Amino acid sequence: MRIRLDVAYDGGDFKGWASQPGLRTVEGELSAALATVLRLSSVQLTCAGRTDAGVHARGQVVHVDLDELPEGPERLVRRVNGVLAGDLRLLRAVEAPPGFDARFSAVWRRYVYRVVDSPEAADPLSRGHVLVWPRPLDVEAMAEASAALRGLHDFASFCKQREGATTIRTLLDLDWARSDDGVVSATVRADAFCHSMVRSLVGCLLAVGEGRKPVTWPAEALAAGQRAAAVAVAPAHGLTLEEVGYPPDAELAARSEVTRARRA
Amino acid sequence: MRIRLDVAYDGGDFKGWASQPGLRTVEGELSAALATVLRLSSVQLTCAGRTDAGVHARGQVVHVDLDELPEGPERLVRRVNGVLAGDLRLLRAVEAPPGFDARFSAVWRRYVYRVVDSPEAADPLSRGHVLVWPRPLDVEAMAEASAALRGLHDFASFCKQREGATTIRTLLDLDWARSDDGVVSATVRADAFCHSMVRSLVGCLLAVGEGRKPVTWPAEALAAGQRAAAVAVAPAHGLTLEEVGYPPDAELAARSEVTRARRA
Repeated sequence: MRIRLDVAYDGGDFKGWASQPGLRTVEGELSAALATVLRLSSVQLTCAGRTDAGVHARGQVVHVDLDELPEGPERLVRRVNGVLAGDLRLLRAVEAPPGFDARFSAVWRRYVYRVVDSPEAADPLSRGHVLVWPRPLDVEAMAEASAALRGLHDFASFCKQREGATTIRTLLDLDWARSDDGVVSATVRADAFCHSMVRSLVGCLLAVGEGRKPVTWPAEALAAGQRAAAVAVAPAHGLTLEEVGYPPDAELAARSEVTRARRA
Repeated sequence: MRIRLDVAYDGGDFKGWASQPGLRTVEGELSAALATVLRLSSVQLTCAGRTDAGVHARGQVVHVDLDELPEGPERLVRRVNGVLAGDLRLLRAVEAPPGFDARFSAVWRRYVYRVVDSPEAADPLSRGHVLVWPRPLDVEAMAEASAALRGLHDFASFCKQREGATTIRTLLDLDWARSDDGVVSATVRADAFCHSMVRSLVGCLLAVGEGRKPVTWPAEALAAGQRAAAVAVAPAHGLTLEEVGYPPDAELAARSEVTRARRA
């Protein structure tokens, strides 16, 4: 049986999602907690978004395959949270619908990057997940520059290159807003992201927001088709994986066939 | 000249507002930072709400009297924040209107106590300022029980007694709400609070919310007129001083005369 786990974490004290020997990672802590509670020697996890060191999640989705779950998923949540430290929480555990795969069934990932640009808006209670920017940001300019980036593009200019991996993605949303409490947020949603893509997009747009680069610059950087040194990667702690989108349960099995065929 | 300072802090690593030798306190850190920046040997601060160890603030108000402020208050904000650690922020500094006193001019203090009562609503990013309650809370029952506590009462049952200090207060608001993201908040506003009053009120109402005590119990505890062992003090880290209310500037000087006359 396949179990879907919804997971949240404060990334500040984790070296990212992916297990690494000797380092504290989300995958490492969560799989160890599950193994302890389920009395298994090890547990294999698959997640929707392999977040980098320092990146947070409120809506990470994970699956795990188990031979049995005698006590039911609700009790699993309580027991696993009893083992985990406070910066990593299991929000929900449910039996996954047929054909569900946390990674390959996902149709979009939504991240939010948060930043404050004035001392008055600084909130010490959220300093761990909101970047403090020392200069005022022009949200309208960032929104205007973002429009040219949305849609289907080769985002190689905003990706850390990896051998053989595609950098063609569909950017569904890239929206900026300033809330009543002064926090400037970028909502970034795409079918998938290449490595460091959200933080590179945000870094590029912050340069526009503070007036250091023209509004047309991000589109030019995109068109260049290769990573420019001028595109800074924004700090990890402002970024949170908020939600992962999946198709309706009834479509999962059919989609799973297609995905399997494509990967074969 | 008197300067009004608006201050926010994560109370987690502070032993409260009030200076204590050898301990890290908000007053101690802030007065030291001001003294450093202003090149003074010491600085005397007066605040609106002397928060306990572990209690947070987004809207603490402080005043300080200075002979001069050559560089202007805006530059003071930047320089003081440059000296302070990230868990304490100076949000604003302005020259105070005539008759202003951070403590004696204040007409109300508003605190919010936050709690989550389900694993699904737990957010690791706010675990430092939201209490996790292990059992489901009935917000309607807590709201009903709160109604009987609002208004002018002797709150001795909810105060740590201090020799000679009045425990008669006007409780302006005591409202419970559950937000879309599952956080249950109590908004507590009064002309002033006696020691540990907000956390005692919340502790009492949580017992009602989880069904351990009847809805009528908080009113009975209030009427008893003395502290009952059954009234637990809720943990500090769920509590935040959000805002302090002052009269319009034009009324401050007149009010200050009245206050001075009363205290004389």
